[in-house]
Amino acid sequence: METLTVELGARSYPIHIGAGLLERADLLRPHVRGGQAMVVTNETVAPLYLERLLRSLEGLRVDHVVLPDGERYKTLQVMDRIYTALLERHHDRGTTLIALGGGVVGDMTGFAAATYLRGVDFIQVPTTLLAQVDSSVGGKTGVNHPLGKNMIGAFHQPRCVLIDTDTLDTLPDRELSAGLAEVVKYGLIDDPALFAWLEDHLEALLARDPAALRHAIARSCADKARIVADDETERSGRRALLNLGHTFGHAIETGVGYGTWLHGEAVGCGMVMAADLSRRLSWMEAAEVERVRRMVERARLPVRPPAGLTTDRFLELMAVDKKVLGGRLRLVLLEGIGHAVLTDRFDGSLLRETIDTFTVP
Amino acid sequence: METLTVELGARSYPIHIGAGLLERADLLRPHVRGGQAMVVTNETVAPLYLERLLRSLEGLRVDHVVLPDGERYKTLQVMDRIYTALLERHHDRGTTLIALGGGVVGDMTGFAAATYLRGVDFIQVPTTLLAQVDSSVGGKTGVNHPLGKNMIGAFHQPRCVLIDTDTLDTLPDRELSAGLAEVVKYGLIDDPALFAWLEDHLEALLARDPAALRHAIARSCADKARIVADDETERSGRRALLNLGHTFGHAIETGVGYGTWLHGEAVGCGMVMAADLSRRLSWMEAAEVERVRRMVERARLPVRPPAGLTTDRFLELMAVDKKVLGGRLRLVLLEGIGHAVLTDRFDGSLLRETIDTFTVP
Repeated sequence: METLTVELGARSYPIHIGAGLLERADLLRPHVRGGQAMVVTNETVAPLYLERLLRSLEGLRVDHVVLPDGERYKTLQVMDRIYTALLERHHDRGTTLIALGGGVVGDMTGFAAATYLRGVDFIQVPTTLLAQVDSSVGGKTGVNHPLGKNMIGAFHQPRCVLIDTDTLDTLPDRELSAGLAEVVKYGLIDDPALFAWLEDHLEALLARDPAALRHAIARSCADKARIVADDETERSGRRALLNLGHTFGHAIETGVGYGTWLHGEAVGCGMVMAADLSRRLSWMEAAEVERVRRMVERARLPVRPPAGLTTDRFLELMAVDKKVLGGRLRLVLLEGIGHAVLTDRFDGSLLRETIDTFTVP
Repeated sequence: METLTVELGARSYPIHIGAGLLERADLLRPHVRGGQAMVVTNETVAPLYLERLLRSLEGLRVDHVVLPDGERYKTLQVMDRIYTALLERHHDRGTTLIALGGGVVGDMTGFAAATYLRGVDFIQVPTTLLAQVDSSVGGKTGVNHPLGKNMIGAFHQPRCVLIDTDTLDTLPDRELSAGLAEVVKYGLIDDPALFAWLEDHLEALLARDPAALRHAIARSCADKARIVADDETERSGRRALLNLGHTFGHAIETGVGYGTWLHGEAVGCGMVMAADLSRRLSWMEAAEVERVRRMVERARLPVRPPAGLTTDRFLELMAVDKKVLGGRLRLVLLEGIGHAVLTDRFDGSLLRETIDTFTVP
């Protein structure tokens, strides 16, 4: 097992990573402050791991709520079921919410915890690679709105993140690849050594080699935790680097309808597009762009947006993204592998060229 | 005009109180950081004051959304209209939400600001006495849930509170009285001088004497601001003193259905009940309880719950309240006028006696 700490002063919390951690009541229990907890999971994960988690919570008053599975259920309306369960079972301010599942469950549970009685504790037990390396670290919580993804939410830090790598055994191949997109992203942002390591170990990861997975997860969490600690609420721009590939990706996800593409798939493609634009700006060599494209492809992720999205529609969807400030689009681009920058200083016509090149109307 | 500051470190903010402040662009504009704002109001207040406020915002890109009026619309579903308006009009992270209205508008607007794009600025322009002395100060925001009042929300501090006492000219008598309940409350909690001043000036307040109103509002805001500054997120118990009368009051509001009684009416009655229980515990003299009852009555507020609530139902409704921790009911009671205490150390049978005495099944 490896343990990292996300350093956020009084709100610092540990991330435990290793095999068999769902059974480790000794890791979980110290973070449940009251005698009461509510496990939130979904109908896919519940049959696989709920009982194991509940055993680790024996002796507490524990309730659970099972949500439908899928990004399209990440709504205020579905989240209301968590509030209703909490109120029906008389959960008070001393309760702890425990998110058992992927990013959707984690984001919704975290937002419910941020807003139930104006804020209660929560713990993340992510069961997908994407959630393990991304959404479970950093305290971003929220839901989608029909007019945009993740438009409603709050910053709310968990008390603890418990990552049991065994839960990846049941993860579909496609979701494993989607998670790898975020791992690749950390390499591109500011960890060129991770990127080089991935070039050597991608096949081991795809084969779910436990040691390789633990290393990739721990390194990703450490990279993200460092960035989050620098800029908890995304005010300085540092944290915004984590959005590499995301503005392009959000346009894809929204354009094809939530849930058609996985988030990581859209981010994978978005990173290739960001690299392409960086090259057009002469910030990056063609050979490096090719390393990015090749890595995304080897991770079995798409390197082109789906057919049917026009350039104009793509640009319009990018403009709705939260990274627009004062009406100007800001993007995370690359000055080489391991050096991402947030900028609005790019020629809009080059952005249009990139999108023209990639989209198939 | 009087100006107070709520001292919360980097989140400190001013409260301006006086006549004609809606026209004071110079007070409002410095707190709108970007070029964009969204005014949220309701269908009662909009025809009276919206245009005046919009004039003070000329030169900014300003949109507005008009909600239906009433506590029963303080829901996630109605709040969604604010999100939709913000997204449709492409409001970004630099936007400022401005709440123009009573407590319902303020609470919903504040919660929307706390959660739109994970948090944007907001300004309170309260137009009811209740909102001016209570909900606009302290950063509590939120909505009701069918299973309980104010169960969903967040702490989110405004950038500024602008209290134009002229807006009270159009306030119905019943709502003026409801606001006075909270003013009386500050006297009871820790400001016996205010309580004594109220005994001398209650008729002036009911006659809407401007100087008396300004004094009562400023004193109430200062009392509340001091308590909030001590305990911003209600962790130490100090802030919980503001709930004097509220646990009894919430039971009444829920029992008769939201919106039948005004919040301040329920709190007024709740304070008399809290005083009665305090006397039964021998913490307070009968003569002081009578001063409390007389004050609430002179403010034209009810001193008994509505008929039809049984003692058992009343107790059950009190138990759902947020002030229950670890299963034990905590109440704010009085050790005399100007000395409130938060406690779970009271005999449950005496609480039952109080409720028996007051309820008319």
